[in-house]
Amino acid sequence: MTFEKRLEARAAEIEAGLAEVLAGAASAGAGLPPRLANAMHHAVMGGGKRIRPFLVIETAAALGAEVAAAQPAAIALELVHCYSLVHDDLPSMDNDELRRGKPTVWKAYDEWTAILAGDALLTLAFEHLGEASCPGLDDRQRLALMTGLALASGGRGMVGGQCIDLEADKLRQPKTPTKDHIRRLQAMKTGALFRFACEAGPVVARANAEETAAMARFGAKLGEAFQLADDLLDIDGDAETVGKATSKDAAAGKATLVGLEGIAAARAHLAEIEREALGEIEKFDARADLLRETLRFACARRK
Amino acid sequence: MTFEKRLEARAAEIEAGLAEVLAGAASAGAGLPPRLANAMHHAVMGGGKRIRPFLVIETAAALGAEVAAAQPAAIALELVHCYSLVHDDLPSMDNDELRRGKPTVWKAYDEWTAILAGDALLTLAFEHLGEASCPGLDDRQRLALMTGLALASGGRGMVGGQCIDLEADKLRQPKTPTKDHIRRLQAMKTGALFRFACEAGPVVARANAEETAAMARFGAKLGEAFQLADDLLDIDGDAETVGKATSKDAAAGKATLVGLEGIAAARAHLAEIEREALGEIEKFDARADLLRETLRFACARRK
Repeated sequence: MTFEKRLEARAAEIEAGLAEVLAGAASAGAGLPPRLANAMHHAVMGGGKRIRPFLVIETAAALGAEVAAAQPAAIALELVHCYSLVHDDLPSMDNDELRRGKPTVWKAYDEWTAILAGDALLTLAFEHLGEASCPGLDDRQRLALMTGLALASGGRGMVGGQCIDLEADKLRQPKTPTKDHIRRLQAMKTGALFRFACEAGPVVARANAEETAAMARFGAKLGEAFQLADDLLDIDGDAETVGKATSKDAAAGKATLVGLEGIAAARAHLAEIEREALGEIEKFDARADLLRETLRFACARRK
Repeated sequence: MTFEKRLEARAAEIEAGLAEVLAGAASAGAGLPPRLANAMHHAVMGGGKRIRPFLVIETAAALGAEVAAAQPAAIALELVHCYSLVHDDLPSMDNDELRRGKPTVWKAYDEWTAILAGDALLTLAFEHLGEASCPGLDDRQRLALMTGLALASGGRGMVGGQCIDLEADKLRQPKTPTKDHIRRLQAMKTGALFRFACEAGPVVARANAEETAAMARFGAKLGEAFQLADDLLDIDGDAETVGKATSKDAAAGKATLVGLEGIAAARAHLAEIEREALGEIEKFDARADLLRETLRFACARRK
C-alpha cells in the first residue's frame, strides 16, 4: 500500500470514529441541542488529511500497541484540532468564509453558534478521553493523555500560539518579527499538537520515558516542517490545488519564515528540519519507517 | 462565624488559589503570552461570590475530606465558570460591556483576545486538574473529576444550555417557550455546574455511590434555586444592589420562569425547590448544616 493510501485508509477510520462520537453525544436523551450537534458535525466531518490522529495511531503501532487503544487519543486530538479551526475562522480572528471548500461554521450558522460549537468540541475531547470504552487504557494512561492534550492545546501551547500570531497580525506587535519569534509562534500554534500526537502513541504503548521523549521531539520537528511546507505552499501553490486562497498570508502581511528568509533559504531550512527529525527516530529502526514516510510526505506535499 | 463570613473567607482562599494557578501558567519560561495572561487574569480575579468552588470544598469537608484535596477541583470549576462568562459576554452572544463593575474582557481588550482567553481558561481547568500537586488525590479520582467536569461543561451541559438560551433569544426558537423548556435550559446552563460542584466533593471524599448521587441531586436543585432567585432579582433588584443592569432580561425579551409564571408563582416555585433540595441532604444530618445555609442564602439573596 502506498503511503497516501494508508493515510487515506486511516482517515476513513478516524472519520468513522468521529461520526460515532458525535452521534453518541447527539443521541436522543443525551441532551446535546440539535443546532449545536449540527454545527459540530459541520466542523468535524468530511475533510482534512487527519494527519494528527494518524500520527497518534502510527506511533502507538510502531511501539507495539493495539490500534484500538490509540483510538480515543486520536479522536480527542482531532476534535481539538477541529475546534481550533472553527475559532480561528471567526470574523474577529482570521475572518475566513471557506474551509475545505465548504462555508466555515460561522458563515454556515452564525458567530455565536460557531463559538459554542468550538467550546463544545474542545470539551468533548476531554469527555471522550475520560469515558470512551477502551479496555486497553488504564486510569494512569487516560490521565496522562488528558493532561498532555490540555497542555498542548492551551495558553502555553496552541491557543498561546494563536494569540502571538494574532498580535503580529492585528496589532503589529512586534513591529519586525524575528526568525526566533516566528519559530516560537509556530512551535506553539502548530508544533504543540504535533508533538502531543507523537507523544500520545508512546503513552498508549507504555513506552519508556526516553522513547516517549524522542517521539515527542520528532513530533515537534514534524510540526515545524509541516508549517514551513504550508507557508511555502501558500507562495508556490495555486488556489485550485491548495483548496484555499493562496498568498493570503502575504496579502495579509502575515509574518512567515518564507517571507523573512525568502523561498530558497526556507527550502534549505525545511531540509535541515527534516534531517533533524530523522535523527530523533533513528533508534527506532524499521519500526519508524512509516513515520519517515510521513515526514517525507509533510515536507514534499503539494497540497 | 456567620455564613456570609465563611463564604467570604473561602472566596479569599479560592482567589489566592486562582492567582497562584494563573501566575504559574504565566511564569517565565512557561510560554503563556503576556496579553493572554493579562486577559485571563482580568476574567478571573477580583470578583464573584465563588459559590461553585465553595460548594466543592464544603461538600468534601462535610463528608470528611481534607480541604486541600478538594482545592484542585474547586479551582478548575471556577476557571470553567469564568471562561463561560467571558464567552457569554461577547458581542455575538449577550453583548455585555460590564461585569462585576469592570469592563468585560472583550471590551477591555477585543473580541479575539476574549475568545482565546476563554479557550485558554477552559483548557487550564483540565491542565490544573491533571497536574496540580495534591497528594490527597489518586489517578482514579483525578480522572473522575476531569470527566465529570467535562460532561458538566460541554454540549450536554453548560454549553448546550447556553445554545438553547441563545436560540430562544436570537432566533425566537421555540416561539413560545414552555416551563419545561426553560427548566431544561436552566438545568443545563446553570444546574450542570452546580451539580458537578456538589458531586466533586463526594468524589474527593471517596463517598459511596448513593451519597454521591444524593449530593449531585442536591447540587442540581440548588442550581435551579440559584437561577430562579437570579431571575427574581432581575425584576426586584435595582442596578446598584445587583451590580448589573436590572430587568435586562425583560427588556431583551428573555424567557424566564418569572416572566412565564409571574412573581408570586415563581416565589412559591422557589420555595418548593428549596424543600426538595433539603430532602436530598436530609440523610447527612448535621454534616450538611452548612449546605442548608448555602441553600437558604441562594434562595433569599438580594444581590
